[in-house]
Amino acid sequence: MLNFTYSNHTDIIFGKGTQHTVGQHIKPHAGKILLHYGGGSIKRSGLYEEIIRSLQEAGIEIHELGGVQPNPTLDLVREGITLCRRHAIPFILAVGGGSVIDSAKAIALGAPSSGDVWEYYISKQPADFTPLRVATVLTIPAAGSESSPNSVITCTATKRKLGYGDPQLRPVFSIVNPELFYTLPENQLAYGACDMMSHIFERYFTNTPHTDLTDALCEATLRTIINNARLLRHGGLRQYDPWAELAFSGTIAHNNLLGLGREQDWACHAMEHELSARYDVPHGAGLAVVTPAWMRYIYKNHIPIFLQFAERVMGVTIPPRQPETAILEAIRRLEAYYEEMGLPTTMRQLGIPADHFAEMAAQAVSVRGPIGGLQKLDANDVLAIYNLADR
Amino acid sequence: MLNFTYSNHTDIIFGKGTQHTVGQHIKPHAGKILLHYGGGSIKRSGLYEEIIRSLQEAGIEIHELGGVQPNPTLDLVREGITLCRRHAIPFILAVGGGSVIDSAKAIALGAPSSGDVWEYYISKQPADFTPLRVATVLTIPAAGSESSPNSVITCTATKRKLGYGDPQLRPVFSIVNPELFYTLPENQLAYGACDMMSHIFERYFTNTPHTDLTDALCEATLRTIINNARLLRHGGLRQYDPWAELAFSGTIAHNNLLGLGREQDWACHAMEHELSARYDVPHGAGLAVVTPAWMRYIYKNHIPIFLQFAERVMGVTIPPRQPETAILEAIRRLEAYYEEMGLPTTMRQLGIPADHFAEMAAQAVSVRGPIGGLQKLDANDVLAIYNLADR
Repeated sequence: MLNFTYSNHTDIIFGKGTQHTVGQHIKPHAGKILLHYGGGSIKRSGLYEEIIRSLQEAGIEIHELGGVQPNPTLDLVREGITLCRRHAIPFILAVGGGSVIDSAKAIALGAPSSGDVWEYYISKQPADFTPLRVATVLTIPAAGSESSPNSVITCTATKRKLGYGDPQLRPVFSIVNPELFYTLPENQLAYGACDMMSHIFERYFTNTPHTDLTDALCEATLRTIINNARLLRHGGLRQYDPWAELAFSGTIAHNNLLGLGREQDWACHAMEHELSARYDVPHGAGLAVVTPAWMRYIYKNHIPIFLQFAERVMGVTIPPRQPETAILEAIRRLEAYYEEMGLPTTMRQLGIPADHFAEMAAQAVSVRGPIGGLQKLDANDVLAIYNLADR
Repeated sequence: MLNFTYSNHTDIIFGKGTQHTVGQHIKPHAGKILLHYGGGSIKRSGLYEEIIRSLQEAGIEIHELGGVQPNPTLDLVREGITLCRRHAIPFILAVGGGSVIDSAKAIALGAPSSGDVWEYYISKQPADFTPLRVATVLTIPAAGSESSPNSVITCTATKRKLGYGDPQLRPVFSIVNPELFYTLPENQLAYGACDMMSHIFERYFTNTPHTDLTDALCEATLRTIINNARLLRHGGLRQYDPWAELAFSGTIAHNNLLGLGREQDWACHAMEHELSARYDVPHGAGLAVVTPAWMRYIYKNHIPIFLQFAERVMGVTIPPRQPETAILEAIRRLEAYYEEMGLPTTMRQLGIPADHFAEMAAQAVSVRGPIGGLQKLDANDVLAIYNLADR
């Protein structure tokens, strides 16, 4: 186990009806906010009105910026920064999924900054000032952004999708009410489950020895996601308890508890970002295509951890004297699970042609050199993995 | 799953050499502290000097109060309160195990209070003021007090051992270096493991339905404790990685992640407190005696959760068509494990006669009525459990 510091100051307010408390939770922090959200779904569902009512009851001045898209853009972030500066807004309430929350974090970072916000995403330099504070009402359990320090933004002009992280960007609080997920589009369930699983895979597959506790916590959370997303897929979305398990798992998956004391990987996320930046595919769909290909490409060099994955996560019981058989069966089961959930598992199903694979592979390693903690991947490796997924 | 709020603002600074950073971590919070500790062990081990050096390098004014005993007493707490008031000390650094940390929390609560500190432990009323801040350097992984809001104090005059909890009493930070545990007495390993396991049992055995994630996290942490404490028991205490697993598990076991969204039990802790308050036995030893007896007394009414415990924690594979056989085998394995760790499992081994069982049973339910979340236990039930353990 490696040395670590665990610090997670986001309060999670979880359960039925909790969205009605948003005003009283903001009140101690700010009297004026930017209410940031996506398209019309929160207006159609009635959530928008519930939030406004709670904020008004707490006497909070509301400025608004809607219109966040999946793969949130730098352009809208800049608009939010201008708004916050103009009205001296100290606090951003993100009502939405990962895209809205990531956009809110970027605005929180950019508004008090003297430089351009995009520079932080390119340079990864820590901010030497205090960002605005962010809180969230989660409407899509997936990205884990509700208690993570991370934000991923897309610059449409340059087709770059880049991440930035700073502990100061962790939300002050996040409200998670599983009832709000009843009306999500069916595919959001699958994208979300796949994204959560990937957040755990990125931490689980490691070379760090002696990580018993976090191994077991990762495995426990992965099994919970797999089982409960399946219950929702086959039993319908109006079920409280499976959503509660899934949403809670999504938060745990990315608040970094599961990654403490271990080297992490993050190659699949980097490879996927090139897909969604260029082709605007859903992040969860891109991950379902890239992840099994990545596993097939590297498992031979990492038999013990992949065997443990096969046995403890995918329930493969093939005797360990045939480790490769067991591992290939586990990868096959993972793909079958993604398919059962309605996800694509090939570039073709994702609608991505091979034309730009080499260019995307070069870009994936352009920011910080070779990617991946379990095994360093250069542009040739990434290209090979894209090709493996091109079925 | 029940509604919950998860809030844990304790930063865990974990790993080799981390005790040397204590001064720099306190500096932003206070320029003057009460250094609170137990007997001579931190002086013999050299830790005391390392702490003093780090504090001095950070320019922190140090007041000292040593002498905390296992089952920390109200008398010493009062002494600490007087010291903090006299020197206007705003911050307490506890260097020790659960007893020292619990004592520090009681001082932190009592110093700014206008009333008597013991009243809070009796009434459980929340404080309407801000306690002093507490940080810790952990020297015994067991109680989980390093990131919990709880404190348990014994009044020797009345033989009462009572607990109090307030989120404001959570330490600001806790430093956990597994190397510091190499020189612990062998029995502290067993007491600690047993206490951690009990913190999880108290959360695990619940009537709340649909708790997949926290069930699985509890089971993962229990298995990690069982395996790694055994490695230390048989392989010697100078092993970094098993201590790291155990210490990290001990923190997770009691920071309440594992109890979120579920009704909790806490009958075994209440029953044990009567043993250690009256006979000054180690808390972990008392739990090893009380817990299996409690399981035997109530399991018939709670077959599904005990069967899950048997299968997923104790690895029992007896077919579920014979659930009682499987459960009894699991309880037997738990007892055998405690014995393997060198713990007592009977009142006789603990040196406690039956003379005062009825009186202790009455006292156990005297504060808040019948105890236990899984099944309410009145004084007759508690007496029956004490008698079951009287072998």
